[in-house]
Amino acid sequence: MQVVMGIDPGAANLGFGIVRVEGNRMVALDGGVVETEAEMPIERRLERIHSALAELIEWHQPKAMALEDLYFGKNVHSAMSVGRASGAAMLAAAQRDVRCFVYTPQAIKKAVCGSGAAGKEQVQRMVATLLGLPELPTPDHAADALAVAICHGGGAGREAALAMAEGRVG
Amino acid sequence: MQVVMGIDPGAANLGFGIVRVEGNRMVALDGGVVETEAEMPIERRLERIHSALAELIEWHQPKAMALEDLYFGKNVHSAMSVGRASGAAMLAAAQRDVRCFVYTPQAIKKAVCGSGAAGKEQVQRMVATLLGLPELPTPDHAADALAVAICHGGGAGREAALAMAEGRVG
Repeated sequence: MQVVMGIDPGAANLGFGIVRVEGNRMVALDGGVVETEAEMPIERRLERIHSALAELIEWHQPKAMALEDLYFGKNVHSAMSVGRASGAAMLAAAQRDVRCFVYTPQAIKKAVCGSGAAGKEQVQRMVATLLGLPELPTPDHAADALAVAICHGGGAGREAALAMAEGRVG
Repeated sequence: MQVVMGIDPGAANLGFGIVRVEGNRMVALDGGVVETEAEMPIERRLERIHSALAELIEWHQPKAMALEDLYFGKNVHSAMSVGRASGAAMLAAAQRDVRCFVYTPQAIKKAVCGSGAAGKEQVQRMVATLLGLPELPTPDHAADALAVAICHGGGAGREAALAMAEGRVG
Protein backbone atom coordinates (compact mmCIF):
# COMPACT_ATOMS: atom_id res chain seq x y z
CA MET A 1 0.00 0.00 0.00
CA GLN A 2 1.26 3.45 -0.79
CA VAL A 3 -0.35 6.87 -0.65
CA VAL A 4 0.65 9.35 -3.35
CA MET A 5 -0.08 13.06 -3.30
CA GLY A 6 -0.42 14.58 -6.76
CA ILE A 7 0.09 18.31 -7.29
CA ASP A 8 -0.88 20.53 -10.22
CA PRO A 9 1.06 23.64 -9.19
CA GLY A 10 -0.16 27.20 -9.63
CA ALA A 11 -0.09 30.31 -7.44
CA ALA A 12 -3.78 31.17 -7.88
CA ASN A 13 -5.16 27.63 -8.01
CA LEU A 14 -3.05 24.72 -6.88
CA GLY A 15 -4.71 21.36 -7.46
CA PHE A 16 -4.09 18.42 -5.15
CA GLY A 17 -5.21 14.82 -5.38
CA ILE A 18 -4.45 12.01 -2.98
CA VAL A 19 -4.53 8.44 -4.20
CA ARG A 20 -4.04 5.18 -2.34
CA VAL A 21 -2.43 2.45 -4.42
CA GLU A 22 -3.18 -0.94 -2.91
CA GLY A 23 -2.12 -3.95 -4.90
CA ASN A 24 -4.34 -3.89 -7.96
CA ARG A 25 -6.57 -1.04 -6.78
CA MET A 26 -6.30 2.73 -6.80
CA VAL A 27 -8.63 4.82 -4.67
CA ALA A 28 -9.00 8.60 -4.46
CA LEU A 29 -8.74 9.67 -0.83
CA ASP A 30 -8.99 13.39 -1.34
CA GLY A 31 -8.84 16.03 -4.02
CA GLY A 32 -9.39 19.72 -4.38
CA VAL A 33 -7.82 23.09 -4.95
CA VAL A 34 -5.92 25.50 -2.72
CA GLU A 35 -7.09 28.90 -3.90
CA THR A 36 -5.35 32.15 -3.08
CA GLU A 37 -6.52 35.62 -3.92
CA ALA A 38 -4.62 37.72 -6.44
CA GLU A 39 -4.71 40.69 -4.04
CA MET A 40 -2.68 38.84 -1.43
CA PRO A 41 1.08 39.44 -1.43
CA ILE A 42 2.80 36.58 -3.27
CA GLU A 43 4.71 35.43 -0.17
CA ARG A 44 1.41 35.13 1.75
CA ARG A 45 -0.08 33.07 -1.05
CA LEU A 46 2.90 30.73 -0.91
CA GLU A 47 2.55 30.48 2.85
CA ARG A 48 -1.11 29.54 2.44
CA ILE A 49 -0.20 26.84 -0.10
CA HIS A 50 2.56 25.54 2.15
CA SER A 51 0.39 25.33 5.26
CA ALA A 52 -2.59 23.78 3.46
CA LEU A 53 -0.37 21.06 1.97
CA ALA A 54 1.45 20.52 5.27
CA GLU A 55 -1.94 19.82 6.87
CA LEU A 56 -2.94 17.40 4.09
CA ILE A 57 0.40 15.59 4.42
CA GLU A 58 -0.09 15.24 8.18
CA TRP A 59 -3.56 13.86 7.56
CA HIS A 60 -2.92 11.43 4.71
CA GLN A 61 0.74 10.58 5.36
CA PRO A 62 1.69 10.17 1.67
CA LYS A 63 4.92 8.33 0.80
CA ALA A 64 5.51 10.50 -2.27
CA MET A 65 4.55 13.82 -3.81
CA ALA A 66 4.22 13.80 -7.59
CA LEU A 67 4.17 17.20 -9.31
CA GLU A 68 3.29 18.22 -12.80
CA ASP A 69 6.16 19.98 -14.50
CA LEU A 70 5.55 22.90 -16.76
CA TYR A 71 5.27 22.50 -20.46
CA PHE A 72 7.32 24.51 -22.86
CA GLY A 73 4.39 26.40 -24.33
CA LYS A 74 4.26 28.59 -21.24
CA ASN A 75 6.18 31.83 -21.00
CA VAL A 76 8.96 32.67 -18.56
CA HIS A 77 6.75 34.84 -16.38
CA SER A 78 4.16 32.13 -15.76
CA ALA A 79 6.94 29.55 -15.35
CA MET A 80 8.39 31.66 -12.49
CA SER A 81 4.96 31.86 -10.88
CA VAL A 82 4.28 28.12 -11.22
CA GLY A 83 7.83 27.44 -10.01
CA ARG A 84 7.25 29.43 -6.82
CA ALA A 85 4.07 27.51 -6.00
CA SER A 86 5.87 24.28 -6.83
CA GLY A 87 8.71 25.26 -4.48
CA ALA A 88 6.28 25.92 -1.62
CA ALA A 89 4.66 22.52 -2.19
CA MET A 90 8.00 20.69 -2.36
CA LEU A 91 9.12 22.36 0.83
CA ALA A 92 6.02 21.13 2.68
CA ALA A 93 6.94 17.63 1.46
CA ALA A 94 10.66 17.83 2.31
CA GLN A 95 9.93 19.05 5.84
CA ARG A 96 7.90 15.87 6.41
CA ASP A 97 10.33 13.49 4.68
CA VAL A 98 8.10 13.00 1.66
CA ARG A 99 10.09 12.47 -1.56
CA CYS A 100 9.14 14.56 -4.61
CA PHE A 101 8.88 13.40 -8.22
CA VAL A 102 8.27 15.59 -11.24
CA TYR A 103 6.49 14.48 -14.41
CA THR A 104 5.93 16.26 -17.70
CA PRO A 105 2.35 16.62 -18.94
CA GLN A 106 3.20 14.20 -21.75
CA ALA A 107 4.41 11.53 -19.31
CA ILE A 108 1.26 11.97 -17.22
CA LYS A 109 -1.06 11.66 -20.20
CA LYS A 110 0.83 8.62 -21.41
CA ALA A 111 0.64 6.96 -18.00
CA VAL A 112 -3.06 7.70 -17.56
CA CYS A 113 -4.40 7.37 -21.10
CA GLY A 114 -1.69 5.44 -22.90
CA SER A 115 -0.98 8.42 -25.18
CA GLY A 116 1.02 11.58 -24.54
CA ALA A 117 -1.30 13.47 -26.88
CA ALA A 118 -4.54 12.72 -25.01
CA GLY A 119 -7.00 15.59 -24.57
CA LYS A 120 -8.07 17.15 -21.27
CA GLU A 121 -11.46 15.40 -21.18
CA GLN A 122 -9.97 12.06 -22.09
CA VAL A 123 -7.62 12.38 -19.11
CA GLN A 124 -10.53 13.29 -16.82
CA ARG A 125 -12.57 10.32 -17.99
CA MET A 126 -9.64 7.97 -17.51
CA VAL A 127 -8.97 9.34 -14.01
CA ALA A 128 -12.62 8.70 -13.12
CA THR A 129 -12.41 5.15 -14.54
CA LEU A 130 -9.13 4.26 -12.84
CA LEU A 131 -10.24 5.59 -9.47
CA GLY A 132 -13.79 4.27 -9.75
CA LEU A 133 -15.30 7.73 -9.35
CA PRO A 134 -19.04 8.00 -10.02
CA GLU A 135 -18.52 11.15 -12.11
CA LEU A 136 -15.77 13.20 -13.76
CA PRO A 137 -13.47 14.79 -11.18
CA THR A 138 -13.71 18.57 -10.87
CA PRO A 139 -12.38 21.21 -10.85
CA ASP A 140 -9.77 20.76 -13.61
CA HIS A 141 -6.80 21.37 -11.33
CA ALA A 142 -7.93 18.65 -8.92
CA ALA A 143 -8.43 16.23 -11.83
CA ASP A 144 -4.94 17.05 -13.14
CA ALA A 145 -3.49 16.48 -9.68
CA LEU A 146 -5.19 13.08 -9.42
CA ALA A 147 -3.73 12.26 -12.85
CA VAL A 148 -0.17 13.04 -11.64
CA ALA A 149 -0.73 10.86 -8.58
CA ILE A 150 -1.94 8.02 -10.83
CA CYS A 151 1.10 8.53 -13.07
CA HIS A 152 3.42 8.09 -10.11
CA GLY A 153 1.47 5.26 -8.46
CA GLY A 154 0.98 3.68 -11.88
CA GLY A 155 2.84 0.92 -13.62
CA ALA A 156 1.49 -2.42 -12.49
CA GLY A 157 -1.01 -0.72 -10.20
CA ARG A 158 -2.45 1.28 -13.09
CA GLU A 159 -2.67 -1.74 -15.35
CA ALA A 160 -4.50 -3.74 -12.73
CA ALA A 161 -6.88 -0.91 -11.85
CA LEU A 162 -7.70 -0.51 -15.52
CA ALA A 163 -8.29 -4.22 -15.97
CA MET A 164 -10.62 -4.24 -12.96
CA ALA A 165 -12.48 -1.19 -14.20
CA GLU A 166 -12.98 -2.87 -17.53
CA GLY A 167 -14.19 -6.04 -15.87
CA ARG A 168 -11.23 -8.01 -17.17
CA VAL A 169 -10.13 -9.02 -13.66
CA GLY A 170 -11.66 -9.63 -10.25
CA MET B 1 16.97 52.55 9.87
CA GLN B 2 15.90 49.57 7.86
CA VAL B 3 17.54 46.27 7.06
CA VAL B 4 16.92 44.82 3.60
CA MET B 5 17.71 41.28 2.53
CA GLY B 6 18.48 40.96 -1.17
CA ILE B 7 18.14 37.61 -2.94
CA ASP B 8 19.49 36.46 -6.30
CA PRO B 9 17.51 33.23 -6.58
CA GLY B 10 18.82 29.97 -8.00
CA ALA B 11 18.58 26.32 -6.97
CA ALA B 12 22.30 25.57 -7.24
CA ASN B 13 23.62 28.94 -6.03
CA LEU B 14 21.33 31.37 -4.27
CA GLY B 15 22.96 34.71 -3.53
CA PHE B 16 22.02 36.74 -0.47
CA GLY B 17 23.08 40.18 0.61
CA ILE B 18 21.99 42.08 3.69
CA VAL B 19 22.15 45.85 3.72
CA ARG B 20 21.37 48.34 6.47
CA VAL B 21 19.96 51.63 5.20
CA GLU B 22 20.46 54.32 7.82
CA GLY B 23 19.61 57.84 6.80
CA ASN B 24 22.17 58.71 4.17
CA ARG B 25 24.29 55.60 4.62
CA MET B 26 24.10 52.04 3.34
CA VAL B 27 26.20 49.34 4.94
CA ALA B 28 26.62 45.69 3.94
CA LEU B 29 25.95 43.51 6.97
CA ASP B 30 26.35 40.16 5.32
CA GLY B 31 26.55 38.53 1.92
CA GLY B 32 27.21 35.14 0.45
CA VAL B 33 25.80 32.19 -1.37
CA VAL B 34 23.70 29.23 -0.29
CA GLU B 35 25.05 26.36 -2.36
CA THR B 36 23.29 23.07 -2.86
CA GLU B 37 24.64 20.02 -4.64
CA ALA B 38 23.11 18.91 -7.92
CA GLU B 39 22.96 15.31 -6.63
CA MET B 40 20.59 16.27 -3.80
CA PRO B 41 16.87 15.76 -4.45
CA ILE B 42 15.33 19.10 -5.43
CA GLU B 43 13.05 19.21 -2.37
CA ARG B 44 16.09 18.79 -0.08
CA ARG B 45 17.85 21.62 -1.88
CA LEU B 46 14.83 23.85 -1.34
CA GLU B 47 14.73 22.86 2.32
CA ARG B 48 18.40 23.80 2.67
CA ILE B 49 17.73 27.20 1.06
CA HIS B 50 14.70 27.76 3.27
CA SER B 51 16.48 26.91 6.51
CA ALA B 52 19.61 28.90 5.66
CA LEU B 53 17.54 32.00 4.91
CA ALA B 54 15.34 31.47 7.97
CA GLU B 55 18.49 31.55 10.08
CA LEU B 56 19.76 34.72 8.38
CA ILE B 57 16.37 36.38 8.89
CA GLU B 58 16.40 35.48 12.60
CA TRP B 59 19.89 36.90 12.87
CA HIS B 60 19.56 40.14 10.91
CA GLN B 61 15.83 40.82 11.35
CA PRO B 62 15.31 42.44 7.93
CA LYS B 63 12.18 44.50 7.30
CA ALA B 64 11.98 43.47 3.65
CA MET B 65 13.20 40.81 1.26
CA ALA B 66 13.97 42.06 -2.26
CA LEU B 67 14.29 39.41 -4.96
CA GLU B 68 15.62 39.57 -8.47
CA ASP B 69 13.01 38.51 -10.99
CA LEU B 70 13.92 36.49 -14.01
CA TYR B 71 14.63 38.08 -17.30
CA PHE B 72 12.93 37.00 -20.44
CA GLY B 73 16.05 35.61 -22.09
CA LYS B 74 15.86 32.55 -19.86
CA ASN B 75 14.02 29.41 -20.92
CA VAL B 76 10.97 27.89 -19.25
CA HIS B 77 12.94 25.08 -17.63
CA SER B 78 15.38 27.39 -15.87
CA ALA B 79 12.51 29.75 -14.98
CA MET B 80 10.77 26.87 -13.15
CA SER B 81 13.99 26.09 -11.31
CA VAL B 82 14.63 29.71 -10.33
CA GLY B 83 10.95 30.04 -9.38
CA ARG B 84 11.18 27.10 -6.97
CA ALA B 85 14.20 28.59 -5.21
CA SER B 86 12.44 31.94 -5.14
CA GLY B 87 9.37 30.31 -3.59
CA ALA B 88 11.44 28.70 -0.84
CA ALA B 89 13.05 32.08 -0.08
CA MET B 90 9.72 33.93 -0.03
CA LEU B 91 8.27 31.33 2.29
CA ALA B 92 11.11 31.83 4.77
CA ALA B 93 10.27 35.55 4.66
CA ALA B 94 6.49 35.15 4.97
CA GLN B 95 6.82 32.85 7.98
CA ARG B 96 8.70 35.63 9.79
CA ASP B 97 6.45 38.48 8.64
CA VAL B 98 9.00 39.90 6.22
CA ARG B 99 7.41 41.47 3.13
CA CYS B 100 8.74 40.49 -0.29
CA PHE B 101 9.42 42.74 -3.28
CA VAL B 102 10.42 41.65 -6.75
CA TYR B 103 12.56 43.69 -9.15
CA THR B 104 13.55 43.07 -12.75
CA PRO B 105 17.27 43.05 -13.60
CA GLN B 106 16.70 46.27 -15.55
CA ALA B 107 15.16 48.03 -12.54
CA ILE B 108 18.05 46.86 -10.34
CA LYS B 109 20.71 48.09 -12.77
CA LYS B 110 18.91 51.40 -13.15
CA ALA B 111 18.64 51.85 -9.37
CA VAL B 112 22.28 50.95 -8.75
CA CYS B 113 24.03 52.38 -11.80
CA GLY B 114 21.50 54.84 -13.21
CA SER B 115 21.15 52.78 -16.39
CA GLY B 116 19.14 49.61 -17.08
CA ALA B 117 21.78 48.56 -19.59
CA ALA B 118 24.75 48.62 -17.19
CA GLY B 119 27.18 45.68 -17.42
CA LYS B 120 27.89 43.13 -14.69
CA GLU B 121 31.21 44.66 -13.65
CA GLN B 122 29.77 48.16 -13.60
CA VAL B 123 27.09 46.93 -11.18
CA GLN B 124 29.72 45.26 -8.97
CA ARG B 125 31.83 48.41 -8.87
CA MET B 126 28.81 50.53 -7.99
CA VAL B 127 27.75 48.11 -5.25
CA ALA B 128 31.25 48.35 -3.77
CA THR B 129 31.14 52.16 -3.97
CA LEU B 130 27.66 52.53 -2.48
CA LEU B 131 28.39 50.14 0.39
CA GLY B 132 31.93 51.42 0.98
CA LEU B 133 33.46 47.99 0.40
CA PRO B 134 37.27 47.88 0.12
CA GLU B 135 37.05 45.60 -2.94
CA LEU B 136 34.55 44.24 -5.47
CA PRO B 137 31.99 41.96 -3.83
CA THR B 138 32.28 38.26 -4.75
CA PRO B 139 30.99 35.80 -5.75
CA ASP B 140 28.75 37.16 -8.50
CA HIS B 141 25.53 35.90 -6.90
CA ALA B 142 26.30 37.67 -3.63
CA ALA B 143 27.10 40.89 -5.51
CA ASP B 144 23.82 40.61 -7.42
CA ALA B 145 21.94 40.05 -4.16
CA LEU B 146 23.53 43.15 -2.61
CA ALA B 147 22.46 45.07 -5.73
CA VAL B 148 18.81 44.01 -5.28
CA ALA B 149 18.95 45.07 -1.64
CA ILE B 150 20.35 48.46 -2.67
CA CYS B 151 17.62 48.75 -5.31
CA HIS B 152 14.96 48.27 -2.65
CA GLY B 153 16.63 50.36 0.01
CA GLY B 154 17.49 52.94 -2.61
CA GLY B 155 15.80 56.16 -3.58
CA ALA B 156 16.94 58.94 -1.29
CA GLY B 157 19.18 56.56 0.63
CA ARG B 158 21.02 55.58 -2.53
CA GLU B 159 21.44 59.16 -3.65
CA ALA B 160 22.89 60.18 -0.31
CA ALA B 161 25.22 57.17 -0.13
CA LEU B 162 26.48 57.95 -3.62
CA ALA B 163 27.05 61.59 -2.79
CA MET B 164 29.01 60.57 0.34
CA ALA B 165 31.09 58.08 -1.59
CA GLU B 166 31.94 60.75 -4.14
CA GLY B 167 32.87 63.19 -1.39
CA ARG B 168 30.04 65.53 -2.29
CA VAL B 169 28.51 65.31 1.18
CA GLY B 170 29.68 64.70 4.75
